[in-house]
Amino acid sequence: MSEPLGIALIGCGTVGTGVARLLLEQAERLAARAGRPLVLRHIIVRNPHKERPLPWPQERYTSDLSVALKDPEVQLAVEVVGGVEWAREADLKVLAAGKDLVTANKALLALHGAEVFDAARKHHRSVAFEASVAGGVPIIAALTQSLAANQIRSIQGILNGTCNFILTSMYEQGVSYAAALAEAQRLGYAEADPTLDVDGTDAAHKLAILAQIAFGFTVPVESIERRGIAQIEDVDIKYARELGYQIKLLAESWLHDNQVAMHVSPVLLRLLAPLALVRGAYNAVHVVGDAVGDTLYYGKGAGQMPTASSVVADIIDMAVGRAQRTFNTLRLWSNNGAHFQLRPPGTVRSRFYLRVLVEDQPGVLADVAQVLARHHISIASVIQHEVPDEHEGERVQMVILTHTALTGQFRAAASEINQLRCVMAPSVFYPVAD
Amino acid sequence: MSEPLGIALIGCGTVGTGVARLLLEQAERLAARAGRPLVLRHIIVRNPHKERPLPWPQERYTSDLSVALKDPEVQLAVEVVGGVEWAREADLKVLAAGKDLVTANKALLALHGAEVFDAARKHHRSVAFEASVAGGVPIIAALTQSLAANQIRSIQGILNGTCNFILTSMYEQGVSYAAALAEAQRLGYAEADPTLDVDGTDAAHKLAILAQIAFGFTVPVESIERRGIAQIEDVDIKYARELGYQIKLLAESWLHDNQVAMHVSPVLLRLLAPLALVRGAYNAVHVVGDAVGDTLYYGKGAGQMPTASSVVADIIDMAVGRAQRTFNTLRLWSNNGAHFQLRPPGTVRSRFYLRVLVEDQPGVLADVAQVLARHHISIASVIQHEVPDEHEGERVQMVILTHTALTGQFRAAASEINQLRCVMAPSVFYPVAD
Repeated sequence: MSEPLGIALIGCGTVGTGVARLLLEQAERLAARAGRPLVLRHIIVRNPHKERPLPWPQERYTSDLSVALKDPEVQLAVEVVGGVEWAREADLKVLAAGKDLVTANKALLALHGAEVFDAARKHHRSVAFEASVAGGVPIIAALTQSLAANQIRSIQGILNGTCNFILTSMYEQGVSYAAALAEAQRLGYAEADPTLDVDGTDAAHKLAILAQIAFGFTVPVESIERRGIAQIEDVDIKYARELGYQIKLLAESWLHDNQVAMHVSPVLLRLLAPLALVRGAYNAVHVVGDAVGDTLYYGKGAGQMPTASSVVADIIDMAVGRAQRTFNTLRLWSNNGAHFQLRPPGTVRSRFYLRVLVEDQPGVLADVAQVLARHHISIASVIQHEVPDEHEGERVQMVILTHTALTGQFRAAASEINQLRCVMAPSVFYPVAD
Repeated sequence: MSEPLGIALIGCGTVGTGVARLLLEQAERLAARAGRPLVLRHIIVRNPHKERPLPWPQERYTSDLSVALKDPEVQLAVEVVGGVEWAREADLKVLAAGKDLVTANKALLALHGAEVFDAARKHHRSVAFEASVAGGVPIIAALTQSLAANQIRSIQGILNGTCNFILTSMYEQGVSYAAALAEAQRLGYAEADPTLDVDGTDAAHKLAILAQIAFGFTVPVESIERRGIAQIEDVDIKYARELGYQIKLLAESWLHDNQVAMHVSPVLLRLLAPLALVRGAYNAVHVVGDAVGDTLYYGKGAGQMPTASSVVADIIDMAVGRAQRTFNTLRLWSNNGAHFQLRPPGTVRSRFYLRVLVEDQPGVLADVAQVLARHHISIASVIQHEVPDEHEGERVQMVILTHTALTGQFRAAASEINQLRCVMAPSVFYPVAD
């Protein structure tokens, strides 16, 4: 058996505790898998006096990163802190000190990937980051290794467990968004302040990382169009179901005419689509490659041990020497493969679901259909339920599924529909996956 | 860019042609992914005079393996021939000549894995075999790398696309086994002689490979209990559906009291189970690890380009140097991790589906229930449909779902039920997945 690998763990929250537990409690198993002992030498935390449920002497917790950086027996640092700025500085120091880096920090990579990777290259060190996207789902390994023979055509991910839990509850139990969110918070699937999850920001960070690997494409996160789930009404879940669809928050990126289209959006997904199986807090990524066809990777998207499983897989990859070879070969965040441009969102083609609250009177369907026709958007199906006679003349929901249309044209049509005299409230629309 | 990797391709059938196509037509892409050119230097075929649809000079096809073995610029041989004996000899020669080996030959590994891996270790060479199980699904990489922090608890695979295509047709279109098989043959999903697919042998070979990685467990293939799909009747598909289940051919292996249970069998699977999404000729593997929880990997299980995608991923792993590190660290087929024993099939606990054709007369349910009770098997649900009055006294199907029982006891009970005077035909039973 070779030399031990010395490890410094930076951060000991939920994921850090899981990583420490595996390293400390499964040392024999991990040494067998890595071909050498994995030795945890330092745990760096903000508050070293807090009691923690680990077999680790209280006096050995420290808030001083520099001790670990100066320790010549530490070859690898594992950064699992939240937030961006402190983590960014810590990671740069780790690399400058000549240590390899394993990180689970998606926001850091999405916002500062180039800086971190450039620093690693400058110091001849490597970075691994499987746990940064979709917790226990090995999507980074799939894209960097297993699918390496392919040109990736598209990525569709359910990358935020909080949103998927909420949408699953709304679909399966018929509850409102507010009730589903409250339940997610009660069960620990949603933070007290769920904004970054439910507004699509978290999924956009993860999508930026996946697009970097799949398309060699560094996209400023703010230029990824995103819509969250907080405005989704139960009536749309119900109509979608009636049409044979579920609404899922998807992070999507695909190649189109040598441009990369990307967005995070609630999307109507057919009930038989592979991603439709993804219930509750699970994550999954559907990837299409030009040789392999379509593939799907599924598992828990968050949580202590699923995420720790991926972090420790990276540690083992570093110990075995695979991660360094992957890092050096792929040259991610180096503008190496950047022969693709971001496709302007309005030029993306899609089918659409459109719901309009209209007055129940003659000519209304004709008015709406005329606007769509003027924008060259053809209608695939319509639902308008009969209202009881005594409510005739009141309001009624009209739901339309369109054939494929340019997003820009569809949005223009929707704005125009909102101006019609018969329309009682702004129309609601979502893309429909093919 | 580093030195080119010289490759000899042994076999140029469906998969070999796909591999050659990627190497010859996507040379630039693959060189970028591998960090070095991948150069196809020899194609070895049984009949070098046959015309093939590849940009490769006819005179360079050869049936003489020795030329490639003597070529010092060949570092890697890719064996994608069918059958076992010729392939076994070729692979051993490849390794003895000091070349690394990529193989897609599941039967060879299942039957002679130890011999091939021992030869590789003896000659300080490596073997990679992603394409041997489930075509384009990267299940070997998942088990050897991504899940390396875990003790695998269970593996459930839909590993034979032919069987899954047939069962999907029977379920979705309500056709008979014979009609579904004929359709599969017409579409090229089933061979003219489908025996090894439909009797479960092919899935058993693949399961033996997965169990080797997950449990370090070398099992003689003939000791894996297997039932195929040829005896499945449409009436059982129909009753399963009524109960909320599909019937899938599963290859399963799981840990139980430090023993490894394994079988290939038609199994009733809940409609919401992740594997239930796997339709047609697709494959998927559901893996539970003690840290990661449950995960699933899904894709095309066979076919030219999906399988070639996995073979070329292995070639790139060899070119980058990852595959050698994985090979040397894991020491598969070396009796290294073999602290598990095979669990005798009769001692495995499972729920069961039981269908009995009985006379429609008083006391029949009591008779059947008594036999089950005597064997300590409790009943979870029963279906017995009313027969029209004019058929009273004729035959009727009785379908029972049991709670968990020992397989040995359940089988004993089923034999006893077959002896009852009211029972008109041998009872039919399948395990039910939890």
